[in-house]
Amino acid sequence: MSWFQKEIILSPKSRGIHLITNEITKELAELSAMSVGIAHIFICHTSASLSINENASPDVRRDLEDYLNQSVPENAPYYRHTLEGADDMPAHIKASLLGNSVTVPITRGKLNLGTWQGIYLCEHRDVGGSRRLIITVTGN
Amino acid sequence: MSWFQKEIILSPKSRGIHLITNEITKELAELSAMSVGIAHIFICHTSASLSINENASPDVRRDLEDYLNQSVPENAPYYRHTLEGADDMPAHIKASLLGNSVTVPITRGKLNLGTWQGIYLCEHRDVGGSRRLIITVTGN
Amino acid sequence: MSWFQKEIILSPKSRGIHLITNEITKELAELSAMSVGIAHIFICHTSASLSINENASPDVRRDLEDYLNQSVPENAPYYRHTLEGADDMPAHIKASLLGNSVTVPITRGKLNLGTWQGIYLCEHRDVGGSRRLIITVTGN
Repeated sequence: MSWFQKEIILSPKSRGIHLITNEITKELAELSAMSVGIAHIFICHTSASLSINENASPDVRRDLEDYLNQSVPENAPYYRHTLEGADDMPAHIKASLLGNSVTVPITRGKLNLGTWQGIYLCEHRDVGGSRRLIITVTGN
Repeated sequence: MSWFQKEIILSPKSRGIHLITNEITKELAELSAMSVGIAHIFICHTSASLSINENASPDVRRDLEDYLNQSVPENAPYYRHTLEGADDMPAHIKASLLGNSVTVPITRGKLNLGTWQGIYLCEHRDVGGSRRLIITVTGN
Repeated sequence: MSWFQKEIILSPKSRGIHLITNEITKELAELSAMSVGIAHIFICHTSASLSINENASPDVRRDLEDYLNQSVPENAPYYRHTLEGADDMPAHIKASLLGNSVTVPITRGKLNLGTWQGIYLCEHRDVGGSRRLIITVTGN
């Protein structure tokens, strides 16, 4: 039974959905010693989110971004929280809809993602800057 | 302190929301030895999702399905990812909105779900086929 | 390596989004002995939810509530589950969209939330009553 935890900083990304599976797994060499466990990946921000979805077609990521923009409009007439820009309140809403962490099973030394699954960083701000993640792993 | 992990295959289900609490708990006989822990249930797919919601009225599941279909339309004019069918891109979006895993506390040998809570498989494809879940349990 | 689990009852709250970080952390004195771990917070209900989002501006919470009411209407013509009131079926839908648990990393004896992150109780019923949470912590 063991634990490890890492903080990683993702370089600034444009508004939209980004596949970051490789940026995560390269930090997880310690996994190779575990036969079973869970990896919890947490983003320490309120205007970006994490999700698991299709890892092959970039169009899925573009369509998801477009859907979110349709579903959570900028400049809705009822928004009060507008001082930080038109993209800010929608970013908070999208963050709650998608969630700020993902948890992935570990099996025989690896993240046990399905064939078509990848980890997404969903950047909801126009200029979100660097994003800090905490990866916590426990297993046996 | 112990760990166990199981892969289970759910038989193909029709598009819609399905209560699968019993299909999960029948795989968890090992829980009876744990006084406290967590169970993580993960679906290895990108067009179906897991959620926890009302376990009594089938109408809740039908209404949730109808809501999702209203909220995430097929054939939106901005979709690029259309080659796999009109139900495919909406399925990916719904999967990110609902999430691909649930985590449930374990208390005195059982999943500690509320009285009205059940585990849902949300099948977002017209013909999704079998679905693979990874159940990871750790506790004491 | 240790485990602990607590059940806490939150006093009834009005419909809307409530910051409950302090109500959670005051129950977690045991965290101080852990260098690394995870805290899982689970709500045992199907018409309220948990989320992590902005902890400073009350307007973010009001705008999120307004967004949810716009996005998940009451009295949608296709709802079947209407016997428990106009706010009930929307509450179930919102609960699945936002999720019924959050998981937070523990680092050096504390919840490792970002500077601007707080834990939200999202009360989706007009009169939801007391809400029961199960907090499960494991760490080292």
